[in-house]
Amino acid sequence: MGLKSFVEVQSDSQFPIENLPYGVFRPTPDSEPRIGVAIGDYVLDISVIASAGLFDGPLLKNSDCFNQSNLNKFLELGRPAWKEARATLQKLLSDTEPILRDDAFLRQKALQPMDNAEMLLPVAVGDYTDFYSNINHATNCGLMFRGSENPIKPNWFCLPIAYHGRASSIVVSGTDIIRPRGQDRPKGNSPPYFGPSRKMDFELEMAAVVGPGNELGKPIDVNEAADHLFGLVLMNDWSARDIQGWECVPLGPFLGKSFGTTISPWIVTLDALEPFVCDGPKQNPPPLPYLAEKASRNYDIELEVFIKPAGQEHSYAVTKSNFKHLYWTISQQLAHHTVNGCNLRPGDLLGSGTMSGPEPGTYGSLLELTWNGTKPLSLGEVTRVFIEDGDEVIFTGCCKGNGYTVGFGKCSGKILPSPY
Amino acid sequence: MGLKSFVEVQSDSQFPIENLPYGVFRPTPDSEPRIGVAIGDYVLDISVIASAGLFDGPLLKNSDCFNQSNLNKFLELGRPAWKEARATLQKLLSDTEPILRDDAFLRQKALQPMDNAEMLLPVAVGDYTDFYSNINHATNCGLMFRGSENPIKPNWFCLPIAYHGRASSIVVSGTDIIRPRGQDRPKGNSPPYFGPSRKMDFELEMAAVVGPGNELGKPIDVNEAADHLFGLVLMNDWSARDIQGWECVPLGPFLGKSFGTTISPWIVTLDALEPFVCDGPKQNPPPLPYLAEKASRNYDIELEVFIKPAGQEHSYAVTKSNFKHLYWTISQQLAHHTVNGCNLRPGDLLGSGTMSGPEPGTYGSLLELTWNGTKPLSLGEVTRVFIEDGDEVIFTGCCKGNGYTVGFGKCSGKILPSPY
Ligand SMILES: [Ca+2]
Ligand SMILES: [Ca+2]
Ligand SMILES: [Mg+2]
Ligand SMILES: [Mg+2]
Ligand code: NI
Repeated sequence: MGLKSFVEVQSDSQFPIENLPYGVFRPTPDSEPRIGVAIGDYVLDISVIASAGLFDGPLLKNSDCFNQSNLNKFLELGRPAWKEARATLQKLLSDTEPILRDDAFLRQKALQPMDNAEMLLPVAVGDYTDFYSNINHATNCGLMFRGSENPIKPNWFCLPIAYHGRASSIVVSGTDIIRPRGQDRPKGNSPPYFGPSRKMDFELEMAAVVGPGNELGKPIDVNEAADHLFGLVLMNDWSARDIQGWECVPLGPFLGKSFGTTISPWIVTLDALEPFVCDGPKQNPPPLPYLAEKASRNYDIELEVFIKPAGQEHSYAVTKSNFKHLYWTISQQLAHHTVNGCNLRPGDLLGSGTMSGPEPGTYGSLLELTWNGTKPLSLGEVTRVFIEDGDEVIFTGCCKGNGYTVGFGKCSGKILPSPY
Repeated sequence: MGLKSFVEVQSDSQFPIENLPYGVFRPTPDSEPRIGVAIGDYVLDISVIASAGLFDGPLLKNSDCFNQSNLNKFLELGRPAWKEARATLQKLLSDTEPILRDDAFLRQKALQPMDNAEMLLPVAVGDYTDFYSNINHATNCGLMFRGSENPIKPNWFCLPIAYHGRASSIVVSGTDIIRPRGQDRPKGNSPPYFGPSRKMDFELEMAAVVGPGNELGKPIDVNEAADHLFGLVLMNDWSARDIQGWECVPLGPFLGKSFGTTISPWIVTLDALEPFVCDGPKQNPPPLPYLAEKASRNYDIELEVFIKPAGQEHSYAVTKSNFKHLYWTISQQLAHHTVNGCNLRPGDLLGSGTMSGPEPGTYGSLLELTWNGTKPLSLGEVTRVFIEDGDEVIFTGCCKGNGYTVGFGKCSGKILPSPY
């Protein structure tokens, strides 16, 4: 497109003018939360842009959606408003547009160095749902826990399996996670053990952020689902495998997951991801009509996980995967979620499920990478089967465009020892 | 106690001065939501009481917690404030206290006929968790779906099994519920069916309403759990058994439940329920230390379910049970929920699980009462195996005191046909 911003953007920046992801930040420790978009090494405070009257399109001119402490009100407005905001911001930031470029006072007020910004949760999450839509992950779990005959249950191929997650414990990247305590019954019929989890794991996921949503009782058609999806974040669905294993029959994961779920602070919009659309997977059996899309779209997003072992300076790549390994698309997930009449609200999160690739080096969890602790991973001088106290886990995600990169920043968290 | 209110309370009223349950209501269709307590056939608008400066205790004197559209802010204040509010209200409403009794203007403003009040959801529910803590229900489900050998899995006896529910679709009593659509695979390897649920059911539950809650990473001790529990409501965890059965392995119930969950509008406080405390069950094996209570307390609350079949004038009792059939107490549920560090927030709901008694006529769902549709129930002229379109399901709950009744009002909902 030849878009270029007057704000300096390094050639390897994840935040060029083609991206403009949304987040919520404090420019200084004492300030109120503001809504911003990332550009190069800066955050553009769009509450300042809004107060200056520069959102002059018909949908946003009189809206207070950017003078909020989270993005929910903006998300509720829907895709026409999202497109208007993007057009306004790309114009304001372009090197040919003088309004902001040549106004030193406004620029000073609106552009905050990203290094100084404290990032907060971008949305108030009403409900968080975690899907299980990656066939490699489902296969690996099936092989480990169910055996090689029919590792995947037949229902998996007929609907996007999911469970309700815990909304209260969703935290933003950089928040420490305390190792959870819980029960496990390691062997046979011995009484259960109780203590800090011995099998702390990550799950490499992305989450879709819901836009306007729907009223109770009014499903969203799969071919209209995209208009209800604002963007994507990276998500670490931290998992205590021992707790999860003992508690999860028959009602699914509970305390093995609910101690914390980390998301990246920047929501990359589907509009920014449009150049990275790729074909969805072949689905066999063909989906039932309510899940059948006119066009099945996935996104080509390179994902990587690093572990920085306790006390070390370096982090080590432990897996490389891609968001295109999604079997049920995010539109199918959303249509399925509402087909029973369940209402979604702005800011709800739909986790993708662990995004494993087809080969061992591309798996999305330590459970799979170490095959339930039987194959240790080397990280420089040390080895790991699960996460140890003081280890930091870092996810990255990016899309390589023609001469630019659209990135998600990072989603990181350090595991602290249980104080008990 | 010999407490008596100047407000006339019929001898069979569920809302004597000993009860004073909290709710949120509109006195007239256009008015803003107000917080109230039920007394006889009236709702006392406590925003009026607060504005008149009559909450004069040290904790509530300067609080705006009653000038809100839900109870969350009051819940956050904790038990000392709850006790202060109860003492103030019991005094103000007593027949020996002139302040309200003799002030016709204030009385007129504060006491609204319950018949005119539109009841709303009493809390904003951040997260809703549904436990599975009734041994009769767990046994019946096990017998139907797992067989008579070990109908209950060993983990059930070691921890209060639960799953995250859907918060967005919690509705107040009286809200119609649209029959959900979904998938089922009725037989063997045939392709799944899609359409309106053919096995609509209720689940007779109560839910505990969480008070102050806890920070992420800071568990609540089981012996302090009671201070985090404000009160109880009746809850109908509507369940589409066909959808649930096909989707729930391995991650638990999802769309079979998330189309709607109905709660009663009045939260009866644990303080009002104190006279109805009874011993908790013998637990074998003995609970792990983090679940071991100094005193194990249940509540003797008579529960009843009625169905008013479509087009009929009468409703028929289909089951009688009691909340004392809870295996894991509400304090144990709360302590377990937080032991991994999961944070609870004011207004969160903890569903008890289906409250079945030990005998067939006391089961808490049609699944159990009709033994998965094999034994039809007679309701006057008609029979039912599951809920049909136009049927209304009504729950009641009450505690019989010495000369008075503490009741929950009702929790009802009618199933409307799927419009698709
Ligand atoms: Ca997951
Ligand atoms: Ca239930
Ligand atoms: Mg999680
Ligand atoms: Mg429900
Ligand atoms: Ni939730």
